[in-house]
Amino acid sequence: MAQVGIVMGSDSDMPVMRKAAEVLEEFGISYEMTIISAHREPDVFFDYAKSAESKGFKVIIAGAGMAAHLPGMCAAIFPMPVIGVPMHTTSLGGKDSLYSIVQMPSGIPVATVAINGGKNAGILAAKILATSDAALLEKLKAFTENMKKEVQAKDAHLQEVGWKNY
Amino acid sequence: MAQVGIVMGSDSDMPVMRKAAEVLEEFGISYEMTIISAHREPDVFFDYAKSAESKGFKVIIAGAGMAAHLPGMCAAIFPMPVIGVPMHTTSLGGKDSLYSIVQMPSGIPVATVAINGGKNAGILAAKILATSDAALLEKLKAFTENMKKEVQAKDAHLQEVGWKNY
Amino acid sequence: MAQVGIVMGSDSDMPVMRKAAEVLEEFGISYEMTIISAHREPDVFFDYAKSAESKGFKVIIAGAGMAAHLPGMCAAIFPMPVIGVPMHTTSLGGKDSLYSIVQMPSGIPVATVAINGGKNAGILAAKILATSDAALLEKLKAFTENMKKEVQAKDAHLQEVGWKNY
Amino acid sequence: MAQVGIVMGSDSDMPVMRKAAEVLEEFGISYEMTIISAHREPDVFFDYAKSAESKGFKVIIAGAGMAAHLPGMCAAIFPMPVIGVPMHTTSLGGKDSLYSIVQMPSGIPVATVAINGGKNAGILAAKILATSDAALLEKLKAFTENMKKEVQAKDAHLQEVGWKNY
Amino acid sequence: MAQVGIVMGSDSDMPVMRKAAEVLEEFGISYEMTIISAHREPDVFFDYAKSAESKGFKVIIAGAGMAAHLPGMCAAIFPMPVIGVPMHTTSLGGKDSLYSIVQMPSGIPVATVAINGGKNAGILAAKILATSDAALLEKLKAFTENMKKEVQAKDAHLQEVGWKNY
Amino acid sequence: MAQVGIVMGSDSDMPVMRKAAEVLEEFGISYEMTIISAHREPDVFFDYAKSAESKGFKVIIAGAGMAAHLPGMCAAIFPMPVIGVPMHTTSLGGKDSLYSIVQMPSGIPVATVAINGGKNAGILAAKILATSDAALLEKLKAFTENMKKEVQAKDAHLQEVGWKNY
Amino acid sequence: MAQVGIVMGSDSDMPVMRKAAEVLEEFGISYEMTIISAHREPDVFFDYAKSAESKGFKVIIAGAGMAAHLPGMCAAIFPMPVIGVPMHTTSLGGKDSLYSIVQMPSGIPVATVAINGGKNAGILAAKILATSDAALLEKLKAFTENMKKEVQAKDAHLQEVGWKNY
Amino acid sequence: MAQVGIVMGSDSDMPVMRKAAEVLEEFGISYEMTIISAHREPDVFFDYAKSAESKGFKVIIAGAGMAAHLPGMCAAIFPMPVIGVPMHTTSLGGKDSLYSIVQMPSGIPVATVAINGGKNAGILAAKILATSDAALLEKLKAFTENMKKEVQAKDAHLQEVGWKNY
Repeated sequence: MAQVGIVMGSDSDMPVMRKAAEVLEEFGISYEMTIISAHREPDVFFDYAKSAESKGFKVIIAGAGMAAHLPGMCAAIFPMPVIGVPMHTTSLGGKDSLYSIVQMPSGIPVATVAINGGKNAGILAAKILATSDAALLEKLKAFTENMKKEVQAKDAHLQEVGWKNY
Repeated sequence: MAQVGIVMGSDSDMPVMRKAAEVLEEFGISYEMTIISAHREPDVFFDYAKSAESKGFKVIIAGAGMAAHLPGMCAAIFPMPVIGVPMHTTSLGGKDSLYSIVQMPSGIPVATVAINGGKNAGILAAKILATSDAALLEKLKAFTENMKKEVQAKDAHLQEVGWKNY
Repeated sequence: MAQVGIVMGSDSDMPVMRKAAEVLEEFGISYEMTIISAHREPDVFFDYAKSAESKGFKVIIAGAGMAAHLPGMCAAIFPMPVIGVPMHTTSLGGKDSLYSIVQMPSGIPVATVAINGGKNAGILAAKILATSDAALLEKLKAFTENMKKEVQAKDAHLQEVGWKNY
Repeated sequence: MAQVGIVMGSDSDMPVMRKAAEVLEEFGISYEMTIISAHREPDVFFDYAKSAESKGFKVIIAGAGMAAHLPGMCAAIFPMPVIGVPMHTTSLGGKDSLYSIVQMPSGIPVATVAINGGKNAGILAAKILATSDAALLEKLKAFTENMKKEVQAKDAHLQEVGWKNY
Repeated sequence: MAQVGIVMGSDSDMPVMRKAAEVLEEFGISYEMTIISAHREPDVFFDYAKSAESKGFKVIIAGAGMAAHLPGMCAAIFPMPVIGVPMHTTSLGGKDSLYSIVQMPSGIPVATVAINGGKNAGILAAKILATSDAALLEKLKAFTENMKKEVQAKDAHLQEVGWKNY
Repeated sequence: MAQVGIVMGSDSDMPVMRKAAEVLEEFGISYEMTIISAHREPDVFFDYAKSAESKGFKVIIAGAGMAAHLPGMCAAIFPMPVIGVPMHTTSLGGKDSLYSIVQMPSGIPVATVAINGGKNAGILAAKILATSDAALLEKLKAFTENMKKEVQAKDAHLQEVGWKNY
Repeated sequence: MAQVGIVMGSDSDMPVMRKAAEVLEEFGISYEMTIISAHREPDVFFDYAKSAESKGFKVIIAGAGMAAHLPGMCAAIFPMPVIGVPMHTTSLGGKDSLYSIVQMPSGIPVATVAINGGKNAGILAAKILATSDAALLEKLKAFTENMKKEVQAKDAHLQEVGWKNY
Repeated sequence: MAQVGIVMGSDSDMPVMRKAAEVLEEFGISYEMTIISAHREPDVFFDYAKSAESKGFKVIIAGAGMAAHLPGMCAAIFPMPVIGVPMHTTSLGGKDSLYSIVQMPSGIPVATVAINGGKNAGILAAKILATSDAALLEKLKAFTENMKKEVQAKDAHLQEVGWKNY
């Protein structure tokens, strides 16, 4: 049984959504990745969202672009957190995706991350699971510590070589 | 059997959506008005959209605000035209509703009208039905003629009294 | 006599508008494609819009960019549905085209689709005609079924090879 | 024969457009004010635009809101300058009107002023006519001098009473 | 020990943030509400964010407006989920708050809800806690069922009295 | 003595502004092109704007980008029409330039054309001069006629070869 | 000799700009407040900007709305810092003012604060002067300390009475 | 002891921020450049901001992108001026960065420059220091004089060769 469902409306969202999967793997969180279009196959989508709890999902990460309905419709059916990832779009830069995901009406929240924020969606899913998983919480702290070290290493390099040679 | 289904996500959309109903009545088009939230009652919504054809609907007019998914989800299920009415919103002026309705992905069009364009949604529904109803087409032409006369009357009044007394 | 008129303001709109034609051909719907600029040749445009009904058009699909007036001016004259296709623009991403087409004043609706939504305009025209054409309605259902299968095939491929090899 | 035509799509634009008329009166410029909707009465509009030159118009001031086509369509037909006044709109603040007026395609310029800029439209018309009217040019300079004095009077008052009593 | 920390940058955010508290009370979730400005009292803020885990918080709900840094800075320190609530603003409608909260860089997600979405923030917090609390999950399902009934009651009323008397 | 002054804030605006010059040459209108930055050399700019009338200018075409002050400052000093050309910008697409030019306060209009609308600026200048130059007016009508023929030729080609071979 | 010049384009900006004056008074910083329109009285403006240094100004705070050129033109002439205050506007919410002030081209910075940020402009002026005034720096630290206490007092009140009675 | 601290949230901001350094070098102003992420290493950031005054900094130049909190958080702690540089972003063009930096709440101003305005940030820092450094003020005047000459040289070249050969 997977803890997290990763779902996207189109395989063109894969480059963004795979970053969520990478993070989950790094944290040792089980997940299941699926391509389902709420618009092109509403029945398949409905079955997916309705059976998500019974499959053991605790969190769904849903990515979609333009008039992005997938995250919101997941949140209408799945009783636990849905994380929405708005896709960048050519014409409106992803503002259409962002508004379609974050501006949910009262009663049905979607936990929205930045445009193309696949990686952050994965981290947020881990943070949610960490509310009841002390070992995972420790991993998250180590992850944070690592990020800190990476920035510090960059700064150390800058101090060493100077910006003219950076 | 009603020819047009008018559906809205919340009764706060009524002041806009009733204008669609008024137009349909004016044209003698049968309709059925319903309040259904795709987010708050997805099952009810699904039944509605799936049974719409069998109820005789030829067109659905769907109004919704914010992350407005109702029109797009109708269009995913109902095989004939869905007209989307984006609601004005306090924070984003209806841009969120507009983008959520008009920016549908390839394959599932929503015929979108202006923000708060309830009346135009009704007229568009009539125009759609008029493609196979000569009597209705005549009514539409008379309606257009009327609009023309109204503007002309205003201008005549202006020419008579001048703008200082208008 | 063609059922659908496809009209665009400039031949630079062709890559988007031809997708409407492709869809209509797929559905066996007769159409006539024309390049007419409401701005550069208003008389030609007027004749076009006024004679559209007598040519047998049931729907006009009009594409235009920037301060896009072609769809709205068609809708002012042609008594049946006009579908507007806002073109993507370099500076404003198509927001100028979209607002110029969708924000029509009360009385003259334009059925607006997404920015660059040529294909969806074709499908919407088919859906409109299908309100009085049972055979076409069946084709539309088959088309929808096909879209569903395409997404399912992608997901099946994903489940088979995994996202790392997708 | 009037030198300037003032035209608006709806009498709701009057509060803005009358300011253009006031300015023209102040400068002693003859004008004719008309309410014509390019959308609701395209034939009337066409006659208006086509006869404008023969009526002696040198400039047309056209105000319209939302998907504002009136100024651009005037500019497509009338061979001399058309000044466009974008109306403020409730939902999009007038951005829809502005884009619909200013973003004209190559070949058909509209001299666009600020949202609700009726007064500036009148001044711009005067400036255009002043290119061949030395007496009017002097009036414009006096007008400018006056504006300067008004601001100076305000500042003098401020210096006298201080901002706490302003 | 409270499970949820509710924090806001200013007491002017109270009308929105109290809705989160109301929801938490409805679900029987313990919480602690605090006013802390990351900008006006960075030290106090730092202590708050650093001690949040030891106080037992599993989730922080942070509301802020304009250049809203409170949610993002909480997420930089607190290892479990931070829910961000962008406040409506007079000049930019809350777009400034929304962008400042949702567009977090890679590594530090904030689970963002709609502008002024205090109630949804509370529900999302409950959904997060429900990932490890079966009783709470049942309450959430009942809550969803209730929302459904409310909409159904409205529709029943509409069907009974008709929209003219609604 | 030149009839039109073309001025730009930076030589990076040349590709857009040269189109205005090309049009003026086509119409046989004398012009003078200058690079002046209102920001980098305010004194030079002041002299330019103040001496523009005495140099015989009837119209100034001013192009600028970002916080574009050149057109507005010209309009503050020069008593005849100033045409503003907002430059496309990388980050905001030219919206910054457009707002900085079109949103002039009451009393000082700038005749604004589309983003990057150099050609339209030239045509608008010609239209302004044509208000008192019958020969130029005829040239403008011929120019318009030509545009019409160009579109018609494109359409004729389309009708001949069909869109598949266009 | 005043240390700070406060200048605004119109007395309608006074409610915002007086907040800058109040802050300067609180810090004991001398200032001079003037109403000058760069557009309506460019000569007066030029004299003002050119004589500012000789009057002893170290900083200019300039407020303006719409196509706001006053701050940028001050920065083009005055060699020390210019702080720009974008005014809220009815149609565009102040986005026009903001872009016209902040998006200055390379070479001529304007230190821009928030829309209607009169108070912050005063504080920023104080911070600038504090770079060479140790006593003023201490006052600023006390001011910051005070802000902190105000928020803490609000929180203390909240903890005492609870949000239901706040 | 450096007079100016240059800090950026990520080394991807270097191409923009190095322009600030180049300007400071040109003016002979000492500076220290650092990479610190307020989000990824809040403790390191806090130490940096708190020790900035004791390191002799009179001004901090902070660059950041997306939900850009670094400049505002610096301004919350450092008592002298903080200059914010909003980074261009792929999806929102830098509007997210701009709003996150400029829309600071009352009490904590950030002196914001244009999107990607690294060079202007350096010049603004110099202008701030020049309020108490007469020699630096002279250098700034010479710098301004230079900019003027550069534009004049371009114009001279244009006048010599004409725009067709420019």
